[in-house]
Amino acid sequence: MRLATRNNGTPDGQLVVVSSDNDCFVAANGIATNLLDAMTRWADVAGPLAALAKQPEANQDSAEAFDSASALAPLPRSWQWLDGSAFPQHGLLMQKAFHLPPIESDRPLMYQGMSDRFYGGTADVPFGSEKDGIDFEGEFAVIVDHVPMGTSADDAMDHIKLVVQLNDWSLRTIAPIEMKTGFGWVQAKPACSVAPVAVTPDELGASWSNGRVCLPLRVEWNGKRFGDADGSEMEYGFHELVAHAAATRDLVAGTIIGSGTVSNRDYANAGSSCISERRAIDMIEHGEPKTQFMSFGDRVRMEARSRDGRPLFGVIDQSVTSAKTIVTEP
Amino acid sequence: MRLATRNNGTPDGQLVVVSSDNDCFVAANGIATNLLDAMTRWADVAGPLAALAKQPEANQDSAEAFDSASALAPLPRSWQWLDGSAFPQHGLLMQKAFHLPPIESDRPLMYQGMSDRFYGGTADVPFGSEKDGIDFEGEFAVIVDHVPMGTSADDAMDHIKLVVQLNDWSLRTIAPIEMKTGFGWVQAKPACSVAPVAVTPDELGASWSNGRVCLPLRVEWNGKRFGDADGSEMEYGFHELVAHAAATRDLVAGTIIGSGTVSNRDYANAGSSCISERRAIDMIEHGEPKTQFMSFGDRVRMEARSRDGRPLFGVIDQSVTSAKTIVTEP
Repeated sequence: MRLATRNNGTPDGQLVVVSSDNDCFVAANGIATNLLDAMTRWADVAGPLAALAKQPEANQDSAEAFDSASALAPLPRSWQWLDGSAFPQHGLLMQKAFHLPPIESDRPLMYQGMSDRFYGGTADVPFGSEKDGIDFEGEFAVIVDHVPMGTSADDAMDHIKLVVQLNDWSLRTIAPIEMKTGFGWVQAKPACSVAPVAVTPDELGASWSNGRVCLPLRVEWNGKRFGDADGSEMEYGFHELVAHAAATRDLVAGTIIGSGTVSNRDYANAGSSCISERRAIDMIEHGEPKTQFMSFGDRVRMEARSRDGRPLFGVIDQSVTSAKTIVTEP
Repeated sequence: MRLATRNNGTPDGQLVVVSSDNDCFVAANGIATNLLDAMTRWADVAGPLAALAKQPEANQDSAEAFDSASALAPLPRSWQWLDGSAFPQHGLLMQKAFHLPPIESDRPLMYQGMSDRFYGGTADVPFGSEKDGIDFEGEFAVIVDHVPMGTSADDAMDHIKLVVQLNDWSLRTIAPIEMKTGFGWVQAKPACSVAPVAVTPDELGASWSNGRVCLPLRVEWNGKRFGDADGSEMEYGFHELVAHAAATRDLVAGTIIGSGTVSNRDYANAGSSCISERRAIDMIEHGEPKTQFMSFGDRVRMEARSRDGRPLFGVIDQSVTSAKTIVTEP
């Protein structure tokens, strides 16, 4: 099953069910008003939504064309966003390049980020200054229903209801300053962008394995290939990230949990999913970073497709812009 | 003006206006359904709410007695909770006791915490294990309306609409492990508790000065005085914390920003607002921590009153319990 959110003028948008080729949709009217509502009542709405999911394909006449460019993020806002850093290769490269000590942790790395706004996959994204080191981070993430405190990793697997693909925007000039405090990131982590289609794990077939999205995430920067790193190399599966997050709190329905930037051991061939990692590789290979961060007007495109080339999450394809040219509304 | 939230069975509760002695209330029916709603439309609702605030006192007959023990947190959930650590004395004591290097930062310290649940001031608070080092943290906090990205500290002052008093529960066995990663705290910071009454800054009179709550916060643990540290010694005022938080993001209406544990230079007389700080003082004075963390069944009470002894935020007075004895609902 594939779900998306149309802009109907409300903060949470309108929930729609999308066909298996992402070509058309039907509104989920009468089942759930929006995806956040659906997550809180998943056991009740999953069946009716799955039944409705057969409709756009069985009856193309009553379905409307799905315009992913006008879709909002599947959850335009949620109560909680927790982002992991589950690809060990990314940490190894950063440590090697910047002569950092290994992070002392026998558990997943995770921080809490802002969840009151997620940009759609094709929205322009405003930043205050190019000097902040504007960077993308290609990630996979999952959305859970209510997870009771103390849930085991095995049990957590069943709470993973949807998988999404996102861009965790980062400001690299600020990030190390905040990280040194031990308090995590506030200024360095503005709102993320999310590809338009949230899919149930079964849509991934064999590419959903051991709580991992075993697919390459194609990243292009200004039309040039930047990386195709594969999601399979997570040190911890998403079910283990969920259990980590739920160790001392209930996870509210609609909590989004991210993988961290996708990164592979064979980075020479796979490339990277963020500029920061590429700069680390520059450092290792050339003694200095040669790749610059993003400028206003730059575009980034991210897409993971199925092994046989079918669309899954839809596309992130967006520009960075100056915040001074955009008036944001409350 | 004083606002509170009654339990009406909805996740956000019912907004009520409380009299200036916290003795009675009238529902804000027709003005705003709940406080989160009111924060999003503050410019429209502040006047009608202020007019209504005269009613409970002018007309005691139509007002009902305010039972703070059955009140929810003013915001039982919100889209964002950002907690500072703005009392330098607390950091100095922790560094001295544990031989830590000073935190390198020329800006406020701040992390993002969970905001999908805030306990009421008298609710039992469930924890998984006493071994996690259960600790309270007495704090003041502010609630803002929508703050545009890049707002200055001066302009931020006007966005501070309400002041609250809260208990930032912390798990001290986990906290240093998470802090070392640089990612901030997830497991070490479960849901906070909030005293029942949110007050507009003018309710504090001269005790609201330069963005600080210049009042002692009385903390009692199992009926014994633990501290009376004063909120005036913040290194940064709340308006500066708001501007820090808004540097690279819009702050969504209803964002709560905390002071960090209240701590004074004259800690020998003022005492502390969290056990962790007391243990640091033990270390400095005796070479080892003598104060243990909380046990199931322990109570903590926190209250800041006005200089002339009138109630303000109401009282936090609650027990810690084993999560195994409490069934939480989604």
